[in-house]
Order: sequence, then structure tokens, then C-alpha cells
Amino acid sequence: MQKTRNKYKNIHQWTPFQLLLFYYIAAIALSTILLSLPVAHKPGIDIPFIDILFIAVSAISVTGLSTISIADSLSTTGIIILALIMQLGAVGIMATGTMLWIMLGKRIGFRERNMIMTDQNQTHFDGMVRLIKNIVYVLLVIEAVFFIIIGLYFMKYYSSAGEALLHGFFFVISSISNGGFDITGQSLIPFQSDYFVQFMCMVLIIIGAIGYPVIIEVKEYLFHKRKIKNQFHFSLFTKLTTTTFFCLILVGAVGIFLFDIHGFFKDVSWHESFFYALFQSVTTRSGGLATMDLNLLSDTNHLFMSALMFIGASPSSAGGGIRTTTFALVLIFLFTFIRGGRSVKIFHREIYEVDLNKAVTVTFFAIIVVFSSIIILTLLEPVSLDAVIFEVTSAFGTVGLSLGITDELSAVSKIILMILMFIGRVGILTFLMIFKRKKDPAKFNYPKERIIIG
Amino acid sequence: MQKTRNKYKNIHQWTPFQLLLFYYIAAIALSTILLSLPVAHKPGIDIPFIDILFIAVSAISVTGLSTISIADSLSTTGIIILALIMQLGAVGIMATGTMLWIMLGKRIGFRERNMIMTDQNQTHFDGMVRLIKNIVYVLLVIEAVFFIIIGLYFMKYYSSAGEALLHGFFFVISSISNGGFDITGQSLIPFQSDYFVQFMCMVLIIIGAIGYPVIIEVKEYLFHKRKIKNQFHFSLFTKLTTTTFFCLILVGAVGIFLFDIHGFFKDVSWHESFFYALFQSVTTRSGGLATMDLNLLSDTNHLFMSALMFIGASPSSAGGGIRTTTFALVLIFLFTFIRGGRSVKIFHREIYEVDLNKAVTVTFFAIIVVFSSIIILTLLEPVSLDAVIFEVTSAFGTVGLSLGITDELSAVSKIILMILMFIGRVGILTFLMIFKRKKDPAKFNYPKERIIIG
Ligand SMILES: [K+]
Ligand SMILES: [K+]
Repeated sequence: MQKTRNKYKNIHQWTPFQLLLFYYIAAIALSTILLSLPVAHKPGIDIPFIDILFIAVSAISVTGLSTISIADSLSTTGIIILALIMQLGAVGIMATGTMLWIMLGKRIGFRERNMIMTDQNQTHFDGMVRLIKNIVYVLLVIEAVFFIIIGLYFMKYYSSAGEALLHGFFFVISSISNGGFDITGQSLIPFQSDYFVQFMCMVLIIIGAIGYPVIIEVKEYLFHKRKIKNQFHFSLFTKLTTTTFFCLILVGAVGIFLFDIHGFFKDVSWHESFFYALFQSVTTRSGGLATMDLNLLSDTNHLFMSALMFIGASPSSAGGGIRTTTFALVLIFLFTFIRGGRSVKIFHREIYEVDLNKAVTVTFFAIIVVFSSIIILTLLEPVSLDAVIFEVTSAFGTVGLSLGITDELSAVSKIILMILMFIGRVGILTFLMIFKRKKDPAKFNYPKERIIIG
Repeated sequence: MQKTRNKYKNIHQWTPFQLLLFYYIAAIALSTILLSLPVAHKPGIDIPFIDILFIAVSAISVTGLSTISIADSLSTTGIIILALIMQLGAVGIMATGTMLWIMLGKRIGFRERNMIMTDQNQTHFDGMVRLIKNIVYVLLVIEAVFFIIIGLYFMKYYSSAGEALLHGFFFVISSISNGGFDITGQSLIPFQSDYFVQFMCMVLIIIGAIGYPVIIEVKEYLFHKRKIKNQFHFSLFTKLTTTTFFCLILVGAVGIFLFDIHGFFKDVSWHESFFYALFQSVTTRSGGLATMDLNLLSDTNHLFMSALMFIGASPSSAGGGIRTTTFALVLIFLFTFIRGGRSVKIFHREIYEVDLNKAVTVTFFAIIVVFSSIIILTLLEPVSLDAVIFEVTSAFGTVGLSLGITDELSAVSKIILMILMFIGRVGILTFLMIFKRKKDPAKFNYPKERIIIG
């Protein structure tokens, strides 16, 4: 760890953390200025500064929580600005996430020759530019395809072609960036019987949340020459994160259905239940759009979905939370240790101890941050405990689902949510780099002594 | 780990876990039979079997949760039986806890010559008997002293000497065993203005919850010959657990006060506030008696106290939860790792990695168990979320505080609470021994591969 850090300290002027912090502060400042422009608001609408700042942080962190109604407050120009901010947020996090990984000297798993940084002698700045170009290119191609389909399909919902295209444009960007904002005024509830729209939305959310390195590997696999396809190996990272990702969606959908089988789903047909449960499960990965009023679900489901949102999406994706890999490593660690094993193995690979330590650190730190935020919000807000837990985990997971309390919150609570969105977005590990000691810790050792546990 | 287990497998007929399991099942069966005797009930009172079983589990695990009112249901004989069950529970857990520690071949820190097992050639059974004798002796001496003081003092509260002595007897055993049952019908609320009774109760709870090895070390320190007193060293275990224990009490009292400074404590005098906050903090370590109706505190405080109860008492004490040492090691681990250190140090000693792994495993497993229980109880019970969280952590921490929902619970929820009290009592690590593989895990290694975390 120490060695790696010293290495990139020599070859860089700024640390990855400073890079990220600079990018975020600049992006948030720019977004706040853009959203403050009168042309971004509907005529006669005046939005308080804290709410503009909140939307800017929410959009840059692609969370989607909002203290005001976007549909009622922003003009068409404002809506387009908001879409572009989400796009910027998604590209930013995918780029910085993937870049940090490469800068730390690890290979993502796809072949070196196809890697963004093929030449080790090139500067990191060039690599960064190429990476961003690559991400923007991939995103734009996917977005263009979906925009054409959805835009045309939306003609049946909206009176003018312009309106249909605007809604289609915003829908595609809000879904793939996992931004989760809506301009319908009620999320995807107007499409709660339209399984095609829901399906497209789920595909886009998954593309945004599954992690950029996974997309690159899948892309390489698909465009591989047929004859060497058998030699192609997905990286351990891709296998682990993808398995965890889809397991979470499956467990989430089954859980959401079972926890309200005698409640919300009692009088709902099987295919409606299927889509309600599946969509709400997918959206907790970090999407943030919803096809129903979540207040209709039970407290049990609110807690369950809070846990899913806390876990969040894959690393280097548009999603937040502790991340799927962290969750998976903690579970594997737990299972291994309980069974008496000493080294942690998965997919015929052994996990580095330093990665296990990281996963444990991230999870505990996240629990402390989330629990403290819940304590403070219960102190400040006269709302139910499950609504607070839901709101806090939603912000930390940069999911953006809410039981409808966001607009009632006090300024302090809004600031806490902004901090949570920021931490959830940059990731606990990157966030913790602030506290790292500059110098190597003392090299001397104390005698060891045993401790009674539990 | 493997080596140690094989070692004591050779010298023992049964594993520590089988010993514990046998002890608990036998103790619970015996307690259930004794409490089922008609002579234990008030005339005309018929207690359902599940409630007798619940009280038996609650008393053996010295939790104190009860689905019925002890004062209204048990006769004087029943009350004395209940007190003896709590005493049995407290001695049992201190003995098995300390014994496991010794059997695993670790020194507790007090000098070998004063240890329970001075001769390495003696059988473990002899050591166990001597240990139990020692614990009973220490407990009886402390109990006798406090019984005389409290019994005499209670004369001013009760009309007859017999009643005062019975209440004093039950009070002392319920406090020192951390049993937490009451025969007043409303915990220690009748003594909410009597600071002497509260002080005595806190001292007894602390003696019961601070861990038997600590008591032994303190005893040895006090009766040490003066001239070698300077050479006496407390063990790392004692330093760590005692520091954590009193820090938790301090943080707990300050937190409880601050989180209701505009609520419950608004019109309460400073000395009443001091005792209310301090007593309620001490009791969350695992005591379970309360000097106030906890429903008067805010949701924030309910959550805060739930966290305190989840942490629980010291290992090898009458208390439950993840234990103070586990909590301390996780915090130290987190702090060390965040600061970039590689080995975890405290009090000029280095912590074994296997102990850190244990602490992490215990904490994560406890979170999963507690969270799952909360999910199930919210599904079954039509009560508020904070009451469920409070009840579940109280059972797991074998604390016994409640927001008053215990008697309304369904049979399934009662069984879940019994399982939680059992796990909380024997400790997660001992409980997990069931899942340990019999054979050594495979010795071969897979190649290592890095994973993106967070
Ligand atoms: K989102
Ligand atoms: K108790």
C-alpha cells in the first residue's frame, strides 16, 4: 500500500483524491451556476439557493433526490441542463473510478493491448483524456440507440413530437446515468402498466450501474475474433461483481414480493407483481426511478430496500453505496472464517488480504456514517424512523428513492444528505484518503498479546 | 486455530461447544420444570408453557425480558427459584466463558501461581470445578455484603422485615447477575428518587458485567503484597475491556442526556438528569433494570440505546452482545487501517490478526442476525419500528430493557427472541463453532487476483 502510494506520488503532481475533490467541487459549482440561471427556471419560479445546491449535488452524484419538483420548477432549458449535469456526473465517476484503478497499477483484466493506457510511457493525463473519450463514446452510442427507440415510442404518450423527444431524451439520460430524476412529476408511475418502457429503463439502469470495466470486457468479448473466443477470460472482478449484482436483483425482487405478499401484492395480478417487484429491486441498485408510490409497501420492505440501497452498485459505475464487490468480499470472508478456512478463495482465485481489509473498513465506516446520519435526522425531523432510514441509505447509495420526506427537511438535514451523496458517490475508500498519514507508520513492533473476543 | 482445536480434542471427550450446549439445554430444561411447579405460581395463576419457557431462557441467559408480570404471577417460592436460576445463569456463563479461554491455552494475565489451573497435569474437569467454586465464592461474598446493606435499607420501604429481605435478596441477585428481572412490577421506577439504591444497583451491575477475569485481576491486585505492587501488570485484556466499558458508560450517559435535552430532560433538575442518564447508560451494558419508563425518551435515544445494547458487556461476564473487546478491536482496526497502518497496536501491545478477524466476524454476523430478526419482527408485529429494534438488540445484548411490547408478541417472535438471548449469551464465536469444518481446509492455494473495493 505504502509503496504504491509513493509510486504515484512521484509521477504525479496531484494525488487521486485531490483530482477527485477538484473535479467534484468544480462540477458542483458549475452545475449550481447553470441551474441558478433564470432561463433554467419556469417563469415566475424562484428556487432557494440551498435547493439549487441540493439538486446540483444530487445530479452530479447521480442520486436523484430532490427537495423541489423538477417538473414544476425547471424550464425546458433547465431540464436539458439537468440532463447534461447527470451525464457529466456519470462520465465523471466512471472515468475517475476506472482511472484510479489504473493509476494504482492494477490491471482490470481486459487485455493490455485493448487497454486505455497501452503505452506505459504516455502521461496519465493523456490516458485520462483517452479514457473519458472512450466512456463518452460508449455512452453516446448506447444513448443514441435507446433515444431513437424511446423517443419514437413516446409519441403515443405525448401530444407533440417535441415533447415526446424531450421526455425520451431525459428518460434515457436519467436511466443510464442512474440519475433518477424525473420530469413527469411522479417518477415512472405514469408507465406502471407499460412493461416495454420499464424493461428499457431496467436495461439502461443496469448498464449504468454494472461498472464501466464490465462493459469494456463485455464489449471486447463481443467483438473478439471468433477463433480466439474460447481463450477469452473474464476478470475475477467482472465475475464477482456481475454475479453479486444479479444475485442482489433476484433476491431483492423475491424479497420485495414476499414481504408484501399479504399487503401491496395481495390483489395485484402475477405479471404486474412480477414487474413491480423486479423494477423496484433493479432501481435499488442505484437507478432511483420508481413505478409505484413506495409508501404503499410495508415497513419491512422499507428496511429491506434500505439494506439493498446501502449495498448499492458496482465499483466504477454510476452507482453508489458500499458497492457489490465490498458486500461480496465481506460475505465470503465471513463464510470462510466461520468454516475455519484461513485464505479467502472465489472463482479459483485467492483474494488479497489487503482487499479484504479494505472491504471490511469500507463496510464498517459506511455503517458508522449511515447510523450517525440516521441518529441526527431522527433528532431534527418529525417523520417516521423508517422514512429516515430509507432517505439516508438512499442518499448514501446515490439511489434517489424516497418516501416523500425530502422536501420537508430542514437545512441541516439537507446538508447531511448532500454529504452522504458525496461520500456515496466518490466511495468510502477514496473519501478516507484524506485521513491517511503522510509518512509511513512506525516500523517498530510491540509484543503481541491475545484478546478475548465475543 | 486448527492446531489449538486438535490439541484440546485429544485431551477432552467433548468440545467446548458441546459442553456449553449441554449445560444450556440442561439448565433451561431444569428451570422450565421448576418454574412450572404449581408452588412457584400465585394461587389461581396459570402461565402458558411458552411464557414459562421464555422466562426460563430469559433467566438462564440473564436477560430479563419477560412476557408476563413476575410480580403478578410468581409466588414467593417462585421468586426465590427465579433468583436462583439467574444466579445459576451468571455463574454458568462466567465459568464457561473463563474456562473456554483457559482451555484454548491462553493466559488471562494474572500470575500463573494464582490461576485456577496451577498444575498443567490436573484434568480440566478438576480445573472447571475449582473455577466454578472460585466464582461462586467471589459472588457469594459480594452478594452477602450487599444483601445485608440493601436488606436493612429496604426496611424503610416495606412494611415487614420479611418483605424487605425478599426484595433485597432479589434486588441484589437480579443486579449482580445482570438478570434484570423485577418483582416490583415496574422495574426500579419506585426508586427513581433514591440515589442510594440506584448507586448500589449500578455498582452491582458493573461487577456482573465487567468480566470475571477483570474481577480476579483486581482482587489479586488489591491483595497483593505491598512491596511487589509496583511490579503488578494488568493484562491487555483487562486494560482494553475496562477502558471500553467505562468509555461506553460515559458516552452513553452524555448521549442519552443530549438526545433528550429538549425532551424528557427539559424540566428535570440537574441531579435527577444526572442519575437518569447515568443509570440508563449503565443498564444498557446488560443490567436491564430501569429507573424510568423508556417510552418517555425520544426515537433517537431508542436507536442510540439499541446501539449500546448491541455492543453489550465484557467477555466472560454475565452480559451479552458483541462484547466490549469486539467493539474496541473493530474501532481500533478501522482507525489503524484508515490511517494507513498495517499492524494494530494498543497499550504498547500488538493485536494478533486472528483476533481481529474474530472481532470482524463476530460484528458482521451479529449485524446479520440482528437485522434479520428485525425484518421478521416488523413483518409479524403491528408495533413501531423503534420498539422492534429496541426489543431485538435488548435480547441479543441480554439486556432485558423493553418499550413494553414483549407481552404482546406472537409465539414466533417469542421464539426468535429466545434464540437471540441464547446467541447473545453464549457469544457469537462459540455459537459459530457448529459451522466449523471438521477437517482442515484444503492446503492448496489459488493464484491471487485483485478486486476493486468501494
Ligand atoms: K440514482
Ligand atoms: K440483563
